[in-house]
Amino acid sequence: MSAARAVVLLSGGLDSATVLAIARAEGFEPCAMTFDYGQRHAVELQAAGRVAEHLGVTLHLVMPIDLRAFGRSALTGDIPVPRGRDAHEMASGVPSTYVPARNTVFLSLALAWAEVLEAQEIFIGVNALDSPGYPDCRPEYIAAFERMANLATRATTEQGRHLRIHTPLMTLTKAQIIRRGLELGVDYGLTHTCYDPTDEGVACGECDACQLRLAAFAQVGVPDPVRYKRA
Amino acid sequence: MSAARAVVLLSGGLDSATVLAIARAEGFEPCAMTFDYGQRHAVELQAAGRVAEHLGVTLHLVMPIDLRAFGRSALTGDIPVPRGRDAHEMASGVPSTYVPARNTVFLSLALAWAEVLEAQEIFIGVNALDSPGYPDCRPEYIAAFERMANLATRATTEQGRHLRIHTPLMTLTKAQIIRRGLELGVDYGLTHTCYDPTDEGVACGECDACQLRLAAFAQVGVPDPVRYKRA
Repeated sequence: MSAARAVVLLSGGLDSATVLAIARAEGFEPCAMTFDYGQRHAVELQAAGRVAEHLGVTLHLVMPIDLRAFGRSALTGDIPVPRGRDAHEMASGVPSTYVPARNTVFLSLALAWAEVLEAQEIFIGVNALDSPGYPDCRPEYIAAFERMANLATRATTEQGRHLRIHTPLMTLTKAQIIRRGLELGVDYGLTHTCYDPTDEGVACGECDACQLRLAAFAQVGVPDPVRYKRA
Repeated sequence: MSAARAVVLLSGGLDSATVLAIARAEGFEPCAMTFDYGQRHAVELQAAGRVAEHLGVTLHLVMPIDLRAFGRSALTGDIPVPRGRDAHEMASGVPSTYVPARNTVFLSLALAWAEVLEAQEIFIGVNALDSPGYPDCRPEYIAAFERMANLATRATTEQGRHLRIHTPLMTLTKAQIIRRGLELGVDYGLTHTCYDPTDEGVACGECDACQLRLAAFAQVGVPDPVRYKRA
């Protein structure tokens, strides 16, 4: 009997690489989905490709979706990337890296692909640490999306399937995520986290994302295998 | 005081042209959103542009989104367009023109644009006649999407706004839709409905969409101003 397919949202970052390894460890055949949404750096897409290959993914869909059409986000646009903020500032509100309705757009496209693949599982790497700043990372949002999704497609309304959104990182700290990934054999040297890398893809070590990542590796007590300009 | 903005999904067809006129008649400033999702015919996009101009839309976003990546639909792919089916067949199940999770994808992108525009209203032309075949045209689906959307964005969770999905055609027959549009001054000669037009954009008069349209105009008792190859 072949494994059931699961759509796994894969950004090329640390979190989604861990989610992919978890989906596989839970016995699913992971089908990776990566969005090319006008990110600043092709290095993210390259990282997603490396991670998918490393973890034995056979289907990897890279889908272009131009969120720049909407403007107004540091991840896709003209606003400077915040750096050197402390944890309190990071937690205090919606960061400028917020993309309007991003997870809703991504999960909707994952839902479409899941239906075509006859998959009933979608994995996404949202976690509690992101929750204060990102409304679309909260458990109540995910539950509402799942409920909507089960009313949205032929598979779930006519064919009696139940679609499930898996968020295995929801209650984990970044350090716990890394520990889980290391147990599952994830090579974090293949992942990319930095919001502001060099042209060669070397991480800055200073942006919010690099700071959170470095602090988590320090907490786990293992070196971060990724190269930094300044760490 | 300027009018509140509303995002209106505009395909260039008869239904969405009517919805656009209704949004305007209800006092909103309609911002039209059209998806270029690999439709067979550029004529649909041209119709959307004509309708937007005709109804005085000042913001019209045409967004590319490649749903062909998912395959398997007559509207975007290789499956022959059904034609000459009777009303019973049309109502009997999900038609082959079904695109996986289409309204979910479209509404998600509308939600993202609404947040950027600071709009709290989204208008979509789903209606009861489509319901037997399209799960994502049913009232319970729309309600679930609205509930999810209100948990999804900064505007609705941090800024106390309530987002509303308007479906003014939900309980109307095609003939009632046309009557309402004519009252509001819609020029249906600018719209495009046919699934299988000639290269010049002339409607076939035979596909499901043309048949439903022609029957509705006959019921209203006015001629359809659109040109047909064979009517």
